[in-house]
Amino acid sequence: MGSYEIRPVGHVESPLTDRATAPKQGCDGAPPAWLVFRPEVADAARDLAVGDDLWVLTWLHRADRTVLRVHPRGDPRRPLTGVFSTRSPDRPNPVGLHRVQVTAVDGLRVRVSALEAVDGTPVVDVKPVLDGGR
Amino acid sequence: MGSYEIRPVGHVESPLTDRATAPKQGCDGAPPAWLVFRPEVADAARDLAVGDDLWVLTWLHRADRTVLRVHPRGDPRRPLTGVFSTRSPDRPNPVGLHRVQVTAVDGLRVRVSALEAVDGTPVVDVKPVLDGGR
Repeated sequence: MGSYEIRPVGHVESPLTDRATAPKQGCDGAPPAWLVFRPEVADAARDLAVGDDLWVLTWLHRADRTVLRVHPRGDPRRPLTGVFSTRSPDRPNPVGLHRVQVTAVDGLRVRVSALEAVDGTPVVDVKPVLDGGR
Repeated sequence: MGSYEIRPVGHVESPLTDRATAPKQGCDGAPPAWLVFRPEVADAARDLAVGDDLWVLTWLHRADRTVLRVHPRGDPRRPLTGVFSTRSPDRPNPVGLHRVQVTAVDGLRVRVSALEAVDGTPVVDVKPVLDGGR
């Protein structure tokens, strides 16, 4: 089946620096962050606007890709569970999925609401949220 | 920033074979499909169960990664728009995002509701949908 190469289109700029203390999900109290796009993809980002509801896909570069089962939310009282049934960052292809809203746009820098990724996390893709939240 | 390697965890088995005639989104009348996982990730998939609401992330391997702007939904009357504001499969990192429900599980094969990816599309990741649809 082969493999495919992800070339990040930008990175996250965030006050979060420590994965261990970062919120597990945006609704757990994550701070706002900036998405900083690379100049090469300026044309792809040019129509992002304040108020847009977006899916941000990140590459969780500090994840352990060999992990197949985890205790959900790191709680050892919960039974070991296959990672495809959890949102653990540790998984074979550690793509993070984050729903955010755009609050400011400054050239290649796009400010978004609560994002639980740590500073420097590579951004893989950005997509609009469709009707029905998909 | 470097690049990262995606190693597919499985593939889509679908009656859809032609991207040009495939529905643009699952709600546009896509058929059910199977997710066929690789044996190496069996432990990651073992807790998937009928009724689960899932995000399926795919690698849209037929996409054109050089495209930065498109006419949305292929309609030339719509103005050229940066791909991060569209769900075009043609984009720098062509990761597809699909919301599905599990309707059957047969070992490494998981049947899901409406999925708009063509037969053979590599599967990157599978995650549960969280409360609030995230």
